Amino acid sequence: MSVVARASRAESIRALFNPTSIALVGATDKSGWSLSTFVNLRDNGFTGPVYLVNPRAEQVHGQQAHSSLSAIGAPVDLVYVMVPTAAVLSVLREGERLGIRQYVVLTAGFGEIGAEGARREAEVHDFAVAHGLTVLGPNGNGFINAAASITPYGLPIPAPLLSGSVGVVLQSGALASAILTFSQARNIGLSLLTAMGNETVVSVNDVLDYLIDDPRTKVIALFLESVRHPAEFAAAARRAAATGKPIVVLKIGSSKLASRTAQAHTGALVGDDAVVDAAFRQLGVLRVRSLEDLLVTAGLLTELAPLRGTRIGVVSASGGASEIIADRAEEEGLDIPAFAETTRAELDAILPEFATAQNPLDVTGYVVVDRTLLSRAMEVVSRDPGIDLVVLVSDLPRVEPANVDLAMRMYQATVERVRQAPVPVVVVSNVLVDVTAFGRGVQHETGFPYVAGGIEHGMTAIGAAARWSAVIWDEVPRQVRPAEPVIAGEPSGMWTEQQAAALLADNGIPVVPAQLATDSDSAVAAAEGFGYPVVLKAVADGLGHKSDIGGVRLGLANPREVRQAHDDVRAALQARGATGIGTLIQPQRSGGVELLVGVVRDDTWGLTMAVGLGGMWVEVLRDSALCVLPAGHAEVRAAVERLRGFDVLRGARGGEPADVDAIVDVAVRIGALAEGIGDQLDSLEVNPLLVRGSTVEALDALITWRPAVA
Amino acid sequence: MSVVARASRAESIRALFNPTSIALVGATDKSGWSLSTFVNLRDNGFTGPVYLVNPRAEQVHGQQAHSSLSAIGAPVDLVYVMVPTAAVLSVLREGERLGIRQYVVLTAGFGEIGAEGARREAEVHDFAVAHGLTVLGPNGNGFINAAASITPYGLPIPAPLLSGSVGVVLQSGALASAILTFSQARNIGLSLLTAMGNETVVSVNDVLDYLIDDPRTKVIALFLESVRHPAEFAAAARRAAATGKPIVVLKIGSSKLASRTAQAHTGALVGDDAVVDAAFRQLGVLRVRSLEDLLVTAGLLTELAPLRGTRIGVVSASGGASEIIADRAEEEGLDIPAFAETTRAELDAILPEFATAQNPLDVTGYVVVDRTLLSRAMEVVSRDPGIDLVVLVSDLPRVEPANVDLAMRMYQATVERVRQAPVPVVVVSNVLVDVTAFGRGVQHETGFPYVAGGIEHGMTAIGAAARWSAVIWDEVPRQVRPAEPVIAGEPSGMWTEQQAAALLADNGIPVVPAQLATDSDSAVAAAEGFGYPVVLKAVADGLGHKSDIGGVRLGLANPREVRQAHDDVRAALQARGATGIGTLIQPQRSGGVELLVGVVRDDTWGLTMAVGLGGMWVEVLRDSALCVLPAGHAEVRAAVERLRGFDVLRGARGGEPADVDAIVDVAVRIGALAEGIGDQLDSLEVNPLLVRGSTVEALDALITWRPAVA
Repeated sequence: MSVVARASRAESIRALFNPTSIALVGATDKSGWSLSTFVNLRDNGFTGPVYLVNPRAEQVHGQQAHSSLSAIGAPVDLVYVMVPTAAVLSVLREGERLGIRQYVVLTAGFGEIGAEGARREAEVHDFAVAHGLTVLGPNGNGFINAAASITPYGLPIPAPLLSGSVGVVLQSGALASAILTFSQARNIGLSLLTAMGNETVVSVNDVLDYLIDDPRTKVIALFLESVRHPAEFAAAARRAAATGKPIVVLKIGSSKLASRTAQAHTGALVGDDAVVDAAFRQLGVLRVRSLEDLLVTAGLLTELAPLRGTRIGVVSASGGASEIIADRAEEEGLDIPAFAETTRAELDAILPEFATAQNPLDVTGYVVVDRTLLSRAMEVVSRDPGIDLVVLVSDLPRVEPANVDLAMRMYQATVERVRQAPVPVVVVSNVLVDVTAFGRGVQHETGFPYVAGGIEHGMTAIGAAARWSAVIWDEVPRQVRPAEPVIAGEPSGMWTEQQAAALLADNGIPVVPAQLATDSDSAVAAAEGFGYPVVLKAVADGLGHKSDIGGVRLGLANPREVRQAHDDVRAALQARGATGIGTLIQPQRSGGVELLVGVVRDDTWGLTMAVGLGGMWVEVLRDSALCVLPAGHAEVRAAVERLRGFDVLRGARGGEPADVDAIVDVAVRIGALAEGIGDQLDSLEVNPLLVRGSTVEALDALITWRPAVA
Repeated sequence: MSVVARASRAESIRALFNPTSIALVGATDKSGWSLSTFVNLRDNGFTGPVYLVNPRAEQVHGQQAHSSLSAIGAPVDLVYVMVPTAAVLSVLREGERLGIRQYVVLTAGFGEIGAEGARREAEVHDFAVAHGLTVLGPNGNGFINAAASITPYGLPIPAPLLSGSVGVVLQSGALASAILTFSQARNIGLSLLTAMGNETVVSVNDVLDYLIDDPRTKVIALFLESVRHPAEFAAAARRAAATGKPIVVLKIGSSKLASRTAQAHTGALVGDDAVVDAAFRQLGVLRVRSLEDLLVTAGLLTELAPLRGTRIGVVSASGGASEIIADRAEEEGLDIPAFAETTRAELDAILPEFATAQNPLDVTGYVVVDRTLLSRAMEVVSRDPGIDLVVLVSDLPRVEPANVDLAMRMYQATVERVRQAPVPVVVVSNVLVDVTAFGRGVQHETGFPYVAGGIEHGMTAIGAAARWSAVIWDEVPRQVRPAEPVIAGEPSGMWTEQQAAALLADNGIPVVPAQLATDSDSAVAAAEGFGYPVVLKAVADGLGHKSDIGGVRLGLANPREVRQAHDDVRAALQARGATGIGTLIQPQRSGGVELLVGVVRDDTWGLTMAVGLGGMWVEVLRDSALCVLPAGHAEVRAAVERLRGFDVLRGARGGEPADVDAIVDVAVRIGALAEGIGDQLDSLEVNPLLVRGSTVEALDALITWRPAVA
């Protein structure tokens, strides 16, 4: 999209979410959706006019109705459409004639029900695009602009609607009620909630772009079924990272990669949910696994400054809570270091005799006697030079306590100490229960910080915050410019090892020497040239995995063995009616570790590179790590380090430690080659890629091309 | 414990938790604990007399105080002790003179603060044991017998206290408030909650035994820091399983196995938290990871009959919820099969046109129009012949709806359909929020079933229920009787391979043939006997891992190589000053898969067997599975099947599939041998155990003995 087009699109979306007058077309007392939308606008502070349109009623919801949009006789900013499916287009037509640009279509019965609906949806799409209309939906309940008190939304909104800074975008509108209920229960204010519906015109990425620019939104929370436009999504995610706005995503669903990648070995490794993981990780998008984590994490990030590191100090009044946190911290990659000597001394001065000044800190049940103990201990811990964050386990009151003034002073003192702390303090409650109306009042009156809901989800949120902070402190990942590849030969079908090896070598990727032999004499000559032992491999047109037909002979130690192997392989190929028959002779390498670097095409994210340890690691354990291409050194290195068998590369089995930089460098070159080839590449597999110390060498390769794109 | 002793102990514990009169000794207006205990007893329905004892006050908490226990002048069933640490013993003495047998000691300052405290605790212990007193604590807040309205408990109990059938036992009393708050928030009633304190006299296992017998307790929920008496715990867990009472445990903390096991290779694999996992699994104890899961799971199990299988039918009004459930079901090992044709037809008849009759089922937002749609769809799904359980996604109302009568009729209709369903129906809410007072009322009035709190924790609970059901349908694990082992030799120090191999062979474990050679001629003679190639291994007194000194020579193909290897190894051993020098000749096996079976002694659970794939699997991936001994075929087989590399045994790498039954049989024999040796065994490692098809053979073994126990 051009800069001008983007600006115009952004302006349209801004107008959609910020209308000053709204017409509900198809409003009727018989519809719960109609009543909810009307009541929502009335009860949540919308200050502009709300017109009800119904050609067959004088009054709807106790208010005068208009027979048509035209009959309103006053400007309308947004039309909320609830008419039958077949009538939607005519409403858009009438609105367009009146100069109305913004629409929410609640009506269902479009693409989601089949061909006839899809045809209707295409009409809506085409009309909207042709006339520059901004349409949210259809088949969506609308939006809740909580920050601006504009709530054209078709299901009940539980009161009170809390305005805040989390922007929520949902590909499943039915989850909106759960989101509203949970965010209210955790006192997490929303800026905007959008139920996308069918995304016929306005897409998730449009709303994402809006939220990135929206000053009232600090964190974006997404529920995604699919990433429909990955390039746009990636661009938005990079922009969000650059502007310091975290995106938290609950992404569900998985579908297997198409079976056409089966012949390329790597195909089996790239389950597309793993690609989503890789893509999100590379984009700094925080993936969570539950609705609770989605909101607890988003809520935390609205208040938390980026962390300088992963070292946490834990302060609680419960040994059990401390221990649960210690277990969870390890899972989240957070450290709980020992306190500095000075911290221990300061703590000893304020703790009761039976408490121990250690991290995680349990100040003990003595908090019943000394109600300031917990926050004073937190203050001491926050000054420890070795920590980046304090986790304070503390619950908001659920009901008004007996001595409410004392309690409020206590909360205020805690607030003050949190504000003064030299490192961020995250308050985590013991368990995930509602922040009650009284608790909300305490937060409102005292400015008490966000309370992450329960240790389980709170620690998930802190782990996500730490990963987000690493993204923020890093440079925003650079786009890697693909090299212009050298391709000698006709890029079609499947290339034999020999052609594939030449392609690698031509593009700066180290390849084991090899010589083609067409008869046993030349095979022996090649072997003599390399020195024994050698490897002999079958060559034939379109021959993929050679070992399946006994076409790889290892450890040939003398001319007799080479000659015999050549003749055997040749005979086997001939017996199968193969063409282009020959054998390839290579020196046999020994020692080292075998890796696999493969590139396949993911349906959503495009070319994706898998790096793994070869042999059983990848075949049985599926121990591979993915990078969506293009990928630079940092991303590839992170992938290599994520391998479960990474210790093998570090010499865990008594072998020579591998030069990880050299591996990463070769893998990046392979990725750049694939990216440079682009659309013509179906898959590229280097397997094995042998690593011996700092020597990295492709021993075999397989390339499959796809027809040139018209 | 004898049957009589157990019965007497059980009677003591029953008396502890069911007193008819209570004295609070050390009661004072100045103590929050004192006030809380008094208020708790007064406000939660305790009908017996509560006496306050304070020698220096006429009145406490607005009620007449007594100067001593003796001064009460009426029978006292239970004394709740809050006096200073130094005075606790004298209270027990006075009580004992008055014939009072039951005590709760809130007072801290005992073993938890050091040597002086430990001395005091020992005095309390010895006095209690000598006089048959039942003492809960010290350093514990007491208990809440919600079922009987008896609440001698030192911290505020949030109202209302919900009586029910979950029995809770806490090794960290500070978590009790979180447990009370959360169980109230989820409308989960408790039978008993016990804060154990220091377990000086009454232990977790005592309370466990009580709860297993308690007719009001259906499920037991434990928070454990450590399992202090594993044999008793195991016995209790087996009894619980036999009586159909699930135990759900949040067990935290981990400490590394002592370094003394380092020489035995397996030592590195048996992290003791993994042993806890193995022990719990074998005992049918359900381990969870959070407080939320602890209670959501326990609550579910109070209502759910054992499931016949793992096939679930999902019914919701949200595509997003269905998808989240599908992802979570897979993680929990639950299946979501396609509906039967008849089910689809019946659903088609009631669903709106735009819904799809598939599993998981989204009945769509049409529930807004047809409020019975969800429960009618559930009714249809519950009759599907291919499912074992229905998961119904439904939220309780949080506030009173406009048309409350209609809403209640709707809930009643759902209740009726759940009752009529031929398979269990579990209601899961979309997100984890409180069941409000109104929601509790709905459940109370309509008998609406338990609502598992949120999809995330709800699915965890259902997964646990399925595992529990498998335990129930299985026989209760039999104790395996250890064989009486044949031990030829002096069981001390470390046995060389040769001795260890003989021990295995003597006890029915197949071992590769081997012959000891003391000179190169006898080495060659042995090799000739076996046929080439052979393996030659160093033998010397106390020699552990031979390969570290180059003491394993593989692939010796002729007399010259054998002679050379023998001389080299001999020279190397001599150079190191070794005694008992020789070499061991074995035929060299080729092919197959190498396994490792090791037994080490866990500090808590005793002899524990690790089974793993050899080589890098175990060294780098730590891919091993554990069984606490004794372990029968089913347990060992389950462990083998848990291996990440299990596919290798099934021939995943193109090899011959291994006979898993044969592997399990040999592993069980190794376990039985270790168990039979018992206290004298420090560790026993068979590595590798070679498997080729149905041939299973120990190629090497190492045994370390420990001094006979006095």
